[in-house]
Amino acid sequence: MVDISDIRAAAERLAPVVRRTPLLESPFLNDLAGRRVLVKAECLQHTGSFKFRGAWSAISALDPETRARGVFAFSSGNHAQGVAYAAKLHGIPATILMPADAPKLKLANTAAYGAEVITYDRYSESREEIGARLAAERGLTLVRPYDEPMVIAGQGTVGLELAEQAAEAGVSAADVLVCTGGGGLASGVALALAAEAPGLRVRPAEPEGWNDWQVSLASGERTPAAGGRATLCDAIVTPAPGEITWPILSKLAGPGLAVSDDECLGAMAQAFERLKIVVEPGGAAALAAALHRGAEIEGDAVLVLATGGNVDRDVFLRALQTAAG
Amino acid sequence: MVDISDIRAAAERLAPVVRRTPLLESPFLNDLAGRRVLVKAECLQHTGSFKFRGAWSAISALDPETRARGVFAFSSGNHAQGVAYAAKLHGIPATILMPADAPKLKLANTAAYGAEVITYDRYSESREEIGARLAAERGLTLVRPYDEPMVIAGQGTVGLELAEQAAEAGVSAADVLVCTGGGGLASGVALALAAEAPGLRVRPAEPEGWNDWQVSLASGERTPAAGGRATLCDAIVTPAPGEITWPILSKLAGPGLAVSDDECLGAMAQAFERLKIVVEPGGAAALAAALHRGAEIEGDAVLVLATGGNVDRDVFLRALQTAAG
Repeated sequence: MVDISDIRAAAERLAPVVRRTPLLESPFLNDLAGRRVLVKAECLQHTGSFKFRGAWSAISALDPETRARGVFAFSSGNHAQGVAYAAKLHGIPATILMPADAPKLKLANTAAYGAEVITYDRYSESREEIGARLAAERGLTLVRPYDEPMVIAGQGTVGLELAEQAAEAGVSAADVLVCTGGGGLASGVALALAAEAPGLRVRPAEPEGWNDWQVSLASGERTPAAGGRATLCDAIVTPAPGEITWPILSKLAGPGLAVSDDECLGAMAQAFERLKIVVEPGGAAALAAALHRGAEIEGDAVLVLATGGNVDRDVFLRALQTAAG
Repeated sequence: MVDISDIRAAAERLAPVVRRTPLLESPFLNDLAGRRVLVKAECLQHTGSFKFRGAWSAISALDPETRARGVFAFSSGNHAQGVAYAAKLHGIPATILMPADAPKLKLANTAAYGAEVITYDRYSESREEIGARLAAERGLTLVRPYDEPMVIAGQGTVGLELAEQAAEAGVSAADVLVCTGGGGLASGVALALAAEAPGLRVRPAEPEGWNDWQVSLASGERTPAAGGRATLCDAIVTPAPGEITWPILSKLAGPGLAVSDDECLGAMAQAFERLKIVVEPGGAAALAAALHRGAEIEGDAVLVLATGGNVDRDVFLRALQTAAG
């Protein structure tokens, strides 16, 4: 349903606008982790997360007539901003359905990118139902956050860049830790790496309690997370692996890793101090796993995706104030 | 004394190790400034500042025998870290003389890079005298922070990258705001741009009270700053323009710009929120000028160097807590 040719085509459509994000390394983090830690700073992407890639890929792949009618998305925030900004750059309308408790910065930014924002209660309402109804009523095209081939293809362009950057850094065999919600980024990157750098293996990183990928990959069955508990990692809270992403990752991914909110806050503080980048809790899960789950990782290097940086100031303050790191 | 061929030679020596830092842009900052604001994130360079470039350039240019005896530097911190790390990568000893009141992070990092750190009182002692004596006694080569041709050549590689990146962004004529202490970076960048992108003009950005470049460029005479007052911009506090850098910038630079500590703190908060990068107060002076001195800037785009990100947590917390931005 998605293959490497889709990812290469997405890379061509993205080329004029996408930011090639740097692969960063700090001797201090290497010492802390006991191996080289190479961090791709996708928080520096347009709109502060990798989501811009998938949004641009999906919107640019629509036929012009369909695209002109506008797009619709539902998202905890980063996908919303990616779709809103990609739509704005295409000069088309966007409507975004967001949880009412999404970080204030994400709500404000999505509106500031020119999208119409509609909020809902994420614990009592089904965003899929509301989304489908609104899309049908308004004639907009729904851009799904992960179970959407053109979105997966766009996220896969991270993998094309990573394959080149890892080779430049002298790394040909390593685990690639990816902050994972629905699995759009992880599956796109896994497909790209299978074609371009087969020694690199994707491993999902998730919040404890929302570790549906870890559980599913361990059992071999698509399994919901226990869920129920609150987490700061709003960007990667999903109830279960995606329908399209699961078959890809069940074949290509290594075992999942789960980390606590405190470990994510500590990783944010390390990224601040050692890499000079701003990472949100959900975007720091992979770095947290590199720093705190070293015993579950093999090899003398590990690759990490820092996937987003859209964090409210109070949460960032908490990371700097409370983290021992 | 330094020319474009020195900068190109430095770029070749730096190529295997230097990080090509990204040029970032946010529609939110553009709205705030009333023009495009393109920020080169040199805080993402090795050791968290552009200083690594000059240090590597100077050390790599030494003859092997001299280099093997080791190097010596004095610095408020970023040059220290750059020299310490460049020396470590070359496998040679480094001794660093630092002010006792330098940010704790800079002192700790310099030592952690393997250098021997010696502290002094910056308000009562002459670092130049102590430095010259120590260098002579130990037979080490002094790497000056800015009045050193090979250091200026290394910093000038920022200008080579910027010329390319500005062209890619469609900007051929604009002011380039550079956080400036002794003028090593500003003069290197000015030389590179004069050769590669003559429509781009360097303008020093400084802390109020320590605006020796602004005063000197206005009067045409190398003039000391009023000084005396404390500033958070420790990285760019210097008493007067350098001896080598002054003739370069008096010919090539546009008028200087001076900003307050509060404006730098606000710019740090904007860089956090909109660009997802960590910038220290002195490294935010140019962005502060872009945001708060718009009336003194011409054109529909401005280029900004975010020169360093080595900031203690308490200062960063203050930026996020107190800035209106």
